[in-house]
Amino acid sequence: MPTPDDTTAGAPDVLPGADAYGPVQRRLLVSAVRCFAANGFHGTTTRDIAGGAGLSPAALYVHFPSKELALYEIVRLGHRHAYDILVAARADGPSGPGERLAALVDAYTRFHAQWHVLARVCQYDLGALRPEHYEEVLRTRHETNEIFRVAVAAGVDDGTFDPGLDVRRVARALISLAIDLVRWYRPDGPETPEQLGAFTAQLALRLVARPGGR
Amino acid sequence: MPTPDDTTAGAPDVLPGADAYGPVQRRLLVSAVRCFAANGFHGTTTRDIAGGAGLSPAALYVHFPSKELALYEIVRLGHRHAYDILVAARADGPSGPGERLAALVDAYTRFHAQWHVLARVCQYDLGALRPEHYEEVLRTRHETNEIFRVAVAAGVDDGTFDPGLDVRRVARALISLAIDLVRWYRPDGPETPEQLGAFTAQLALRLVARPGGR
Repeated sequence: MPTPDDTTAGAPDVLPGADAYGPVQRRLLVSAVRCFAANGFHGTTTRDIAGGAGLSPAALYVHFPSKELALYEIVRLGHRHAYDILVAARADGPSGPGERLAALVDAYTRFHAQWHVLARVCQYDLGALRPEHYEEVLRTRHETNEIFRVAVAAGVDDGTFDPGLDVRRVARALISLAIDLVRWYRPDGPETPEQLGAFTAQLALRLVARPGGR
Repeated sequence: MPTPDDTTAGAPDVLPGADAYGPVQRRLLVSAVRCFAANGFHGTTTRDIAGGAGLSPAALYVHFPSKELALYEIVRLGHRHAYDILVAARADGPSGPGERLAALVDAYTRFHAQWHVLARVCQYDLGALRPEHYEEVLRTRHETNEIFRVAVAAGVDDGTFDPGLDVRRVARALISLAIDLVRWYRPDGPETPEQLGAFTAQLALRLVARPGGR
């Protein structure tokens, strides 16, 4: 069985907002993120998580009585953080629909590059959550996606974007462009999160542009 | 542990080109695709695969002496099939760079929707291959991606597409749009593979269009 993702083995930044946790809980969550990202939820044991944190399995149970509860904490944290970043990007003053959409796509893309290990778990291990936890996370996902739909619709409504756009499907495509990079992004690759964010924002403006007028 | 993806439990079509295998081998591979897609490579045991095919673990070993060899066969088959579909779409007579790129994106998107269970394994479990198998699959991936790069470059070179396009990154974005649907596509959703293919092809033409001229 492979060890957790070597590319992030030395990085302390697989967990945004880690200060909200005590030191032991934080070590356990960081280990769990790495184990899930490397081997999947079903391929990870509680012993793997505890061992990665330098603790005994018993210590894990004090903080997370089940492996699923550790996943739930991680997935909830990741989704909430992504949502907060979008709310901040939207509020950050860009005035027109084009600027606002570009800012959202830029921020969402950078999030997925910067936190790619965490984001991989959030996207690929979602189905392992218990139904009530899954439902809760789905609500956050819906609110997140709605931010993109509202931003696309605003530009359609005021005539900045192509009036013939299928708002829901175009928003879904923009979200795909930002999220798919967790499948292939590596921090030692040629592009920084900032470069990826700026480029994807440019693509977003191409996708929504009025025919014949940019 | 969840059972393999219920949405495909009754579907015989998780394995394209299944006729190339004998009946037992085919049952084993179909079971392996479903197990890997549902629980990941590391979360699947050889017993799961054999049991899903109604066979004993010993029967599995006759055909696939290791779990990795079953994954290798599946991932190789999936990548080869996707490549063949693109080669066929390219040869299928569309005359201009726009039509040709649209045909490629359409075909690649339909492939990922139609064979979404297999494609999920091909995308998400790739890292579990042995290095020499991984290298071989990477070569097919490179050839596949190259088809898109060549198609984008052809339209840039002859002036059909925006001359300022970053060919490599735009091709990557088109590939992302086609592949990302394995993350969220469900066969009982509102869109057919054909509808998804046609829509994504439209998006592709928007991404490459010359400013101010469509």
